[in-house]
Amino acid sequence: MIGLLRDGIEPAVIAEALKVLGEVVPAAEITRYDLGAARWHATGELLPESVLGELRQHDAILLGAVGDPSVPSGILERGLLLRLRFELDHHVNLRPARLYPGVRSPLADPPEIDMVVVREGTEGPYAGNGGLLRKDTPHEIATEVSINTSFGVERVVRDAFARAAARPRRHLTLVHKTNVLTHAGSLWSRVVEEVSLQHPDVTVAYQHVDAATIHMVTDPGRYDVIVTDNLFGDILTDLAAAVTGGIGLAASGNMDVTRRNPSMFEPVHGSAPDIAGQGIADPTAAVLSVALLLDHLGEHESSRRIEASVAFDLATRDHQSPGATYAIGDRLAALVSSNVRTG
Amino acid sequence: MIGLLRDGIEPAVIAEALKVLGEVVPAAEITRYDLGAARWHATGELLPESVLGELRQHDAILLGAVGDPSVPSGILERGLLLRLRFELDHHVNLRPARLYPGVRSPLADPPEIDMVVVREGTEGPYAGNGGLLRKDTPHEIATEVSINTSFGVERVVRDAFARAAARPRRHLTLVHKTNVLTHAGSLWSRVVEEVSLQHPDVTVAYQHVDAATIHMVTDPGRYDVIVTDNLFGDILTDLAAAVTGGIGLAASGNMDVTRRNPSMFEPVHGSAPDIAGQGIADPTAAVLSVALLLDHLGEHESSRRIEASVAFDLATRDHQSPGATYAIGDRLAALVSSNVRTG
Ligand SMILES: CC(C)[C@H](C(=O)O)[C@@H](O)C(=O)O
Ligand SMILES: CC(C)[C@H](C(=O)O)[C@@H](O)C(=O)O
Repeated sequence: MIGLLRDGIEPAVIAEALKVLGEVVPAAEITRYDLGAARWHATGELLPESVLGELRQHDAILLGAVGDPSVPSGILERGLLLRLRFELDHHVNLRPARLYPGVRSPLADPPEIDMVVVREGTEGPYAGNGGLLRKDTPHEIATEVSINTSFGVERVVRDAFARAAARPRRHLTLVHKTNVLTHAGSLWSRVVEEVSLQHPDVTVAYQHVDAATIHMVTDPGRYDVIVTDNLFGDILTDLAAAVTGGIGLAASGNMDVTRRNPSMFEPVHGSAPDIAGQGIADPTAAVLSVALLLDHLGEHESSRRIEASVAFDLATRDHQSPGATYAIGDRLAALVSSNVRTG
Repeated sequence: MIGLLRDGIEPAVIAEALKVLGEVVPAAEITRYDLGAARWHATGELLPESVLGELRQHDAILLGAVGDPSVPSGILERGLLLRLRFELDHHVNLRPARLYPGVRSPLADPPEIDMVVVREGTEGPYAGNGGLLRKDTPHEIATEVSINTSFGVERVVRDAFARAAARPRRHLTLVHKTNVLTHAGSLWSRVVEEVSLQHPDVTVAYQHVDAATIHMVTDPGRYDVIVTDNLFGDILTDLAAAVTGGIGLAASGNMDVTRRNPSMFEPVHGSAPDIAGQGIADPTAAVLSVALLLDHLGEHESSRRIEASVAFDLATRDHQSPGATYAIGDRLAALVSSNVRTG
């Protein structure tokens, strides 16, 4: 049972993702929810309680993309996307960034890149805390409060260490700005230090966020697992996606790793209204999001098959004209199915 | 009268910067202040009131680099560097990023890059506002408060528009995260809109900070002037420096554009303790900081000469072995002096 959520302007990539999913889990039960720009325009609704209640009954959620220029900035992001992340306690925002063979990086001399960013998903500067005082006067003050709790930081740091411990390089980098954001920085540093005691096998590094953006373009191969807060994670994962070939390929998971709530998987790219309806959007990130979803549900073998099929397709496709949305989906589905038979 | 400030571990680049300065302003009176790691270790002092008072009497300040691994992270940054920026009301943190001909970018196919980031310097998440509650308990909460005032935002936005209006492309990009940081985002957006009415000749764009990091590696040529807050500016300018050949070349000005306080110029790079004392640090960023300093003091012709000399040297130098610190300084000084004579 997968709750499928999309904003109506880019069903195309999701259709292909489901095509691929059908090859490995033909019996998947899918419920479709039309949330997003179209619904908001028609009814003013963003995320009705009843829909949220139904979504909670699903094993996982696949999200297409949210956002449309016809909706004022922030409405859908906060009322739908962030609301889901917060309501469903998606504290681990998982964003792998891998430079697949065959994919062109904007970097001149890219090394092997294979990192996972574990971005905190339920607090930090995203808490929505802050306000405006004396609005529209010369004495206006706007505040934004980043809230970091030991509960919130510890659970995401634990998750990041566990992921690092399970990877060949076993390396974890904390990214923050501890020399300026001293309060939050102190908490993050102490938690990483404490949890590291239980993982003597994982090497730990620290980088300021500004320095991390430099290394992301000069030496991205150094990163294995990165753990960071909600805002730094937002910034770094877009940059990591860019150096590994673009957000057209980047998948992500918004996860409640306690499994009390369904986790939600989504391509990092937006709804790309400029190319919507033309049938040319690349469904690869949506397909890779399905792989993350299956992995989370324990379907490791199917997940690996999808990822291997994507890797094969990226290594062999003509990147100048990769084909229409449906054609890429067909190719990936065929690869997965042959993989299922022979693999 | 230039107050010179350095932390004792990297006087080398400053010596070369002064060598070059001497070619254009032989009569410059220089006062040297040994603040930084060595002084802190010896006396526990970071920025004595008396020194701050003396610095206020200078026309401008040239800062070498602050930071040493022997000093706990944050001490020098907050007690010295940020304290100066805040005490001297350095609200315009000016960071040009230009890809000079001959300089190798980490990007595969770099376009022409010539941008100026105007980073707010006295508020935002750098205000030092926040705290720890229930420290070292499972219920600990750490907060960081970003403070944005219409006074603070307006003066930096006005400065950015004025700079954009004076450049050939006349293009200004506001970078923020208005869809999440809605309070601060609202203030920044409204101020940009208001000020733009007085600059119909300047085209205005908006980008979320995460998207800006993508474009910084896929399409950096699009940027002319960027205006942004203190933290986003910190992140973006390191990234902009990286794509234009590294922070070894990046200069910056911390400016009180009202001229009530002396402005402070510094290379963006740190004190690079790993190569200190070896005579191999590249003084180019320090020399370019002198050019910014002179420009600020109205010595536009001298400033241009220095920049042209740097551009010539970068276009013609052997980037594999650019020479020792003093040798680069000698070359630049000679270029500037021949420029002075012939230019
Ligand atoms: C759309 C926006 C609210 C969102 C975020 O900032 O988290 C997006 O940038 C992302 O990274 O998923
Ligand atoms: C050293 C640090 C406090 C400083 C900052 O964050 O502003 C530095 O990164 C910079 O950009 O000048």
